[in-house]
Amino acid sequence: MSVLNEVLAANEAYAADFGAKGELALPPARGFAILTCMDARLDPAKYAGLSEGDAHVIRNAGGRASDDAIRSLVISYKLLGTKEWFVIHHSNCGMEFFTDEVIRGLLANSLETAALGVEGFYDVGTGPGSAEAKYIDWLTISDQAQSVTEDVARIKAHPLVPAGIPVYGYIYDVVTGRLIEVPTATAAGKAA
Amino acid sequence: MSVLNEVLAANEAYAADFGAKGELALPPARGFAILTCMDARLDPAKYAGLSEGDAHVIRNAGGRASDDAIRSLVISYKLLGTKEWFVIHHSNCGMEFFTDEVIRGLLANSLETAALGVEGFYDVGTGPGSAEAKYIDWLTISDQAQSVTEDVARIKAHPLVPAGIPVYGYIYDVVTGRLIEVPTATAAGKAA
Repeated sequence: MSVLNEVLAANEAYAADFGAKGELALPPARGFAILTCMDARLDPAKYAGLSEGDAHVIRNAGGRASDDAIRSLVISYKLLGTKEWFVIHHSNCGMEFFTDEVIRGLLANSLETAALGVEGFYDVGTGPGSAEAKYIDWLTISDQAQSVTEDVARIKAHPLVPAGIPVYGYIYDVVTGRLIEVPTATAAGKAA
Repeated sequence: MSVLNEVLAANEAYAADFGAKGELALPPARGFAILTCMDARLDPAKYAGLSEGDAHVIRNAGGRASDDAIRSLVISYKLLGTKEWFVIHHSNCGMEFFTDEVIRGLLANSLETAALGVEGFYDVGTGPGSAEAKYIDWLTISDQAQSVTEDVARIKAHPLVPAGIPVYGYIYDVVTGRLIEVPTATAAGKAA
């Protein structure tokens, strides 16, 4: 079965037993938001105990406090009433295995999928590539605790984020499923 | 119990029964990615039938093909080998209830949470506000089928996205839990 048909069949089964979930309100019932990574191993609903309707979940490569993540968080607070936020990066993140220079070089050579060896990513195919990658900041990570701390600090300092909103910093351990506090981030993220 | 303690208690229970999930590989096992909205009512793992390790999930306000979502999708394909993508917006999305002008006006008046009345959002508190909101494109939505079609087209046309990657366009119905195809988006998103 194709991926598309698998997804549609799974959706059919979910919708068949949807019940009272169709009456949920738009604003998050538990009043918080999580910013985390797109990584396939992470299921924020499961690792943080969310039911449908509970909380906003924002995800991108790395779980970074990009301009777009901040756009989403500001909408979450200003229009939909969340009052606390989590920034959750994770161990063994793909964003640790390359730099802006590496991905720009790889994409200039070929758009096709690279392989990952002991020395990092390398291209197995050839062209066509694109020089466009140099106009993008890829938001790579060299140290998870540092990236969480930086992202919490960036969010707290943003002119559209009100003073006093707590922002908690955690790392999700993909081997154990546990959330590990990043003390430097949590200190910076505390309500004023 | 505070939100933070609730999340940590739920995580403790999840980790206690983590089992073989600790051995999952970094690249998505089922080779696809979903771009969807941060809305609390949406659980992509449930509505699309994902287990941990299966697929990348990218989420922002509206599920829009922002520059940051494209950063994430390019990493997903180039470095982590996904081969098919979904763009899934949804009915009753908060992004339909305001415009750039509205949110800029609200944030200039006050950063605090607004209320939603029959005529749209309005401020209940006062100051401090910020004029910074005018530097952000809020990516609001006036028509879901149109926003899905535009976003699929933007992704397909991006210079860092290889020709031939299928991008499927759907709307998730929050009342029924069903995925509804957007034919104009799917046609534009077909593999070359």
